Amino acid sequence: MFEGPVQDLIDELGKLPGIGPKSAQRIAFHLLSVEPPDIERLQNALQRVRDGVQFCVVCGTVSDAEQCRICADPRRDRTMICVVEEPKDVQAIERTREFRGRYHVLGGALDPLSGVGPDQLRIRELLTRIGNQSDGVDVAEVIIATDPNTEGEATATYLVRMLRDFPGLSVTRLASGLPMGGDLEFADELTLGRALSGRRAM
Amino acid sequence: MFEGPVQDLIDELGKLPGIGPKSAQRIAFHLLSVEPPDIERLQNALQRVRDGVQFCVVCGTVSDAEQCRICADPRRDRTMICVVEEPKDVQAIERTREFRGRYHVLGGALDPLSGVGPDQLRIRELLTRIGNQSDGVDVAEVIIATDPNTEGEATATYLVRMLRDFPGLSVTRLASGLPMGGDLEFADELTLGRALSGRRAM
Repeated sequence: MFEGPVQDLIDELGKLPGIGPKSAQRIAFHLLSVEPPDIERLQNALQRVRDGVQFCVVCGTVSDAEQCRICADPRRDRTMICVVEEPKDVQAIERTREFRGRYHVLGGALDPLSGVGPDQLRIRELLTRIGNQSDGVDVAEVIIATDPNTEGEATATYLVRMLRDFPGLSVTRLASGLPMGGDLEFADELTLGRALSGRRAM
Repeated sequence: MFEGPVQDLIDELGKLPGIGPKSAQRIAFHLLSVEPPDIERLQNALQRVRDGVQFCVVCGTVSDAEQCRICADPRRDRTMICVVEEPKDVQAIERTREFRGRYHVLGGALDPLSGVGPDQLRIRELLTRIGNQSDGVDVAEVIIATDPNTEGEATATYLVRMLRDFPGLSVTRLASGLPMGGDLEFADELTLGRALSGRRAM
């Protein structure tokens, strides 16, 4: 619709997730009006990501160094591993300040229809990590924190089966139930059902 | 929160209009997972915009050449000029297929609080364009299509005052009223008021 470089930029922006044609247009015209150094910073950030992002050799999250800050931190509890799907899930759990152990990033969830089987996830690395006592400490608990959806639940079930063989290892799953600050009336049946079946004595 | 280049990219994306921290994160991880040529195309599009976008010497919209396709098109009616704030407004009016004249892009609207006065807009160029008969044709009508908000209305009022001095020039404004497909009950008072005062015989 527009002519030349502006439309090219709108087209490229429109390919990004969550950016529709209107947003792409707004961003493109915003970039037309900013100073060149502002665009340059975005370009450089893209270049650095394109040059390759490093992943922690232990847990697999995005990292500055061979080991990420969490895995390299001696104060983190090495007997607990929290298994998540993506690096952003690590950040979400870190924000709660409730977990002092370490993480393992699978890189996704089982989804056979999209061709994601156990070999596409970092499951073998998890088993090696637990079996090897890689830090000279026995892992006592694995918390499975995959998403509470079909793929995440399937992944959790698969992991439980794989982890059964480690003697003395406790395998737990994040609780499902009503979100805090929510309204019982607006909870979907599945969530309310989980909240009921998972009720606790008080 | 994340380490290294990923966080830099999230920060830069988060500066774009309409992209919050969550969207920036989603886009950054999307870019981590795509092939390098996809990132390269976005980088190149940014570079071309940074290298400079050309504006039509006649109407001021973004353009591939010295004159935009509309101004260069001999089939467009040269006696009518539609005055808009931004290039995207040109596209919006083009989509209606109701207007066969040419455009004039002001580059914004009068907004003294933000330091936008008549000299910051392409108003002088408009007056020259009308006064000079730049295409050997007298301009018969100027349609003022600035936004129906405070700044757009102020700009329209200012333009009417400036255009009064051209003998035989008819100056019109886009109609205000109920949006089509809308529901009268949900129209705000200002819009409904305008629809009433602008009522037409049928």
